[in-house]
Amino acid sequence: MRGYALHKDDYGRRLARIEGQVRGLARMIDEDQYCIDVLTQIASVTKALQNVGLGLLDEHLRHCVMEAQTAGEGDAKITEAIGAVERLLRV
Amino acid sequence: MRGYALHKDDYGRRLARIEGQVRGLARMIDEDQYCIDVLTQIASVTKALQNVGLGLLDEHLRHCVMEAQTAGEGDAKITEAIGAVERLLRV
Amino acid sequence: MRGYALHKDDYGRRLARIEGQVRGLARMIDEDQYCIDVLTQIASVTKALQNVGLGLLDEHLRHCVMEAQTAGEGDAKITEAIGAVERLLRV
Amino acid sequence: MRGYALHKDDYGRRLARIEGQVRGLARMIDEDQYCIDVLTQIASVTKALQNVGLGLLDEHLRHCVMEAQTAGEGDAKITEAIGAVERLLRV
Repeated sequence: MRGYALHKDDYGRRLARIEGQVRGLARMIDEDQYCIDVLTQIASVTKALQNVGLGLLDEHLRHCVMEAQTAGEGDAKITEAIGAVERLLRV
Repeated sequence: MRGYALHKDDYGRRLARIEGQVRGLARMIDEDQYCIDVLTQIASVTKALQNVGLGLLDEHLRHCVMEAQTAGEGDAKITEAIGAVERLLRV
Repeated sequence: MRGYALHKDDYGRRLARIEGQVRGLARMIDEDQYCIDVLTQIASVTKALQNVGLGLLDEHLRHCVMEAQTAGEGDAKITEAIGAVERLLRV
Repeated sequence: MRGYALHKDDYGRRLARIEGQVRGLARMIDEDQYCIDVLTQIASVTKALQNVGLGLLDEHLRHCVMEAQTAGEGDAKITEAIGAVERLLRV
């Protein structure tokens, strides 16, 4: 069981929507839409992706890290989670 | 003609690859892969999207803004471009 | 006791260095240094600040959140920590 | 003359305020204030710094890059400015 197990359907739907938005970006460029409008849409897709990441991080801390803590293995899990936050910050 | 006109095919290919990566994220969740691995992949997709944005911004400045400047309309274009950078920073 | 209690001196030194870097930025502008060089230095100071934030978040999760978890109050602490990560991402 | 020449005093004041905020961060840690409150303040100082960066970038594009363009040297200036945006995004 993963931390996100209870919300798999929700994440599936959000990622399907993001996939459609990326396809929409390709269409905008194919149709020669204005650069700034494409950039605005890229910022919006990136934000949607980061929000999925924040949701997964929330559930990871709430479930996986807390269970690891009960088993005396919380420290390694926290080091790993901080590494993930760092990668999200530095995209 | 847009700033990115000469590289439309390249952007098309990059966005097709990003679309595939987003589909891969959905598959990772469907297959119950480890939260941290999904987060690492989200950071990678976000970075690929931001790089498409940086490329479009580069060509927008190099072509659209410069042409506007020649026509005496550079100032409004720069205000607009800075707004786009701000949205990319604050995703 | 805060999560960062054991490393207060280290954080003090890092923030003193960052304070000096911000003073250096003001000096660069006062001396009419080149815009791009000031921007490069701003990126460096911002990164140093974000690294202090990541360190504090690490110790907050490792100590405060884990202790709250033992006391049955972990959930509220995680909601709060995720809010802090979101604010760091959206600066 | 730099792009920011007309607003040097304004940037000086903003950076003096940011310097005070960094000193305030050090004081928060010295006084054992709550980790999350320090993180919230770090996000705020980082945002203030990024805003100074956006302002300098705006004036750099508006003045230095446009003058370089008139002198037929715009391309190199844009490559350089995009590098600066990339460093601001990846802090």
